[in-house]
Amino acid sequence: MAKSAGIVIIGDEILSGKFADENAPFLIGQLRPLGVSLRRVAIIPDEVADIAGTVRDFAERFDYVFTSGGVGPTHDDITMAGIARGFATRVVRHPELEATLRDYMGESLTEAHLRFAEVPDGARLVFGDGATWPVVAFENVYILPGVPSIFQRKFLAIRQQFRGEPFSLGRLYCSGDESDLARHLSEVVERFPEVKLGSYPREDARDFKVIVTVESLDEARARDAFAELKARLEHVLVDDEPPAPVV
Amino acid sequence: MAKSAGIVIIGDEILSGKFADENAPFLIGQLRPLGVSLRRVAIIPDEVADIAGTVRDFAERFDYVFTSGGVGPTHDDITMAGIARGFATRVVRHPELEATLRDYMGESLTEAHLRFAEVPDGARLVFGDGATWPVVAFENVYILPGVPSIFQRKFLAIRQQFRGEPFSLGRLYCSGDESDLARHLSEVVERFPEVKLGSYPREDARDFKVIVTVESLDEARARDAFAELKARLEHVLVDDEPPAPVV
Repeated sequence: MAKSAGIVIIGDEILSGKFADENAPFLIGQLRPLGVSLRRVAIIPDEVADIAGTVRDFAERFDYVFTSGGVGPTHDDITMAGIARGFATRVVRHPELEATLRDYMGESLTEAHLRFAEVPDGARLVFGDGATWPVVAFENVYILPGVPSIFQRKFLAIRQQFRGEPFSLGRLYCSGDESDLARHLSEVVERFPEVKLGSYPREDARDFKVIVTVESLDEARARDAFAELKARLEHVLVDDEPPAPVV
Repeated sequence: MAKSAGIVIIGDEILSGKFADENAPFLIGQLRPLGVSLRRVAIIPDEVADIAGTVRDFAERFDYVFTSGGVGPTHDDITMAGIARGFATRVVRHPELEATLRDYMGESLTEAHLRFAEVPDGARLVFGDGATWPVVAFENVYILPGVPSIFQRKFLAIRQQFRGEPFSLGRLYCSGDESDLARHLSEVVERFPEVKLGSYPREDARDFKVIVTVESLDEARARDAFAELKARLEHVLVDDEPPAPVV
């Protein structure tokens, strides 16, 4: 069984179209090759109650939760307060983060800077490969900043901590309509419950009309399902990629 | 007061990284210039109970809900069943859609094709500019397909039906750290409760370090807040764009 995950993107600027979210697409691309099963993404506004409810709900349902955004020094940076409320605790200054900030900023340190040391009470610091500034985590929630370059750098530093068994994925490229494939897919799904089949029409491809995906944590079963499907769809098959681990 | 909206992206293929979602970014870019306030995006798996719960919840909280995906003829296309369950109704064949399909397909019509005529009982057809195939809507839920080119074509055909008053948006490009701006932003937020201020550090820009946004449905108030903020931030201001309607 793969570990499950949820992503919470926090930011009015995403919902209002001022900036495109780059962090969910990046993390989606990272989690699958780590063998983690992403179950849900939510993009929510900068509101303490919403952050509290959403993050708590995700933390109860999934093994890992990753949040993006709302951790800077300004009035709209309320992710720490939201997560603290969600877990019925309060925001405190983390002594180690505060010491690091005081060291780094020296004389020029202000109250606004010290907001970077504020975390939900009970949060821990997760150190990664070569990262000088740790990721703040509260229980199974990893709290990451919204700026894409920093988000990526911080996740990459800790990514190996989430590695599980790889998924195996194969593809069949078909020239027929989805409607012609439907019966075959349903019958193979029934025989291979541990294999997931997907069927995706593409309007923009030249040689094929539908991509059928065959995926499982059990590579042998993925290969068997793939072989059966390939035989059944031979008359419309344009190309295929047999199941192989996604890493 | 702007109309509110939520987006539900339905698809294992998005969560597992097989395809990048293009429909939420497209719709985000469309809704703001229509004067619609997007409040939440959810990306969820192909599961009837999850679709039922999420869409019903969004429909109660927002004026408009847009769903993407899961409306084809195969085993994983279960959006209609999910929405029907969410509203405690059942899936039926829509007589007008069925007649159109029979007309169009003639002799080659199969049971799989007829799945395209299945809708939650009580759904209505929304016709737009020059679209031959209507959008299926159930109450305030607009049910759109996942294939990006078709999703876009269908939304563009009906988009004028959602038009409201425009938001006004201005920007200040600053060279200082966010920590230096925090106090000014908080004070202006307090004086202009109907104006929304955002503060976004950028690592990739050459001339500035933070973009401050000033936004409101009340253009005059947006301009007043902008003027006050501009005076306060003069010492770090690199460039500015005064508030103007986003259309």
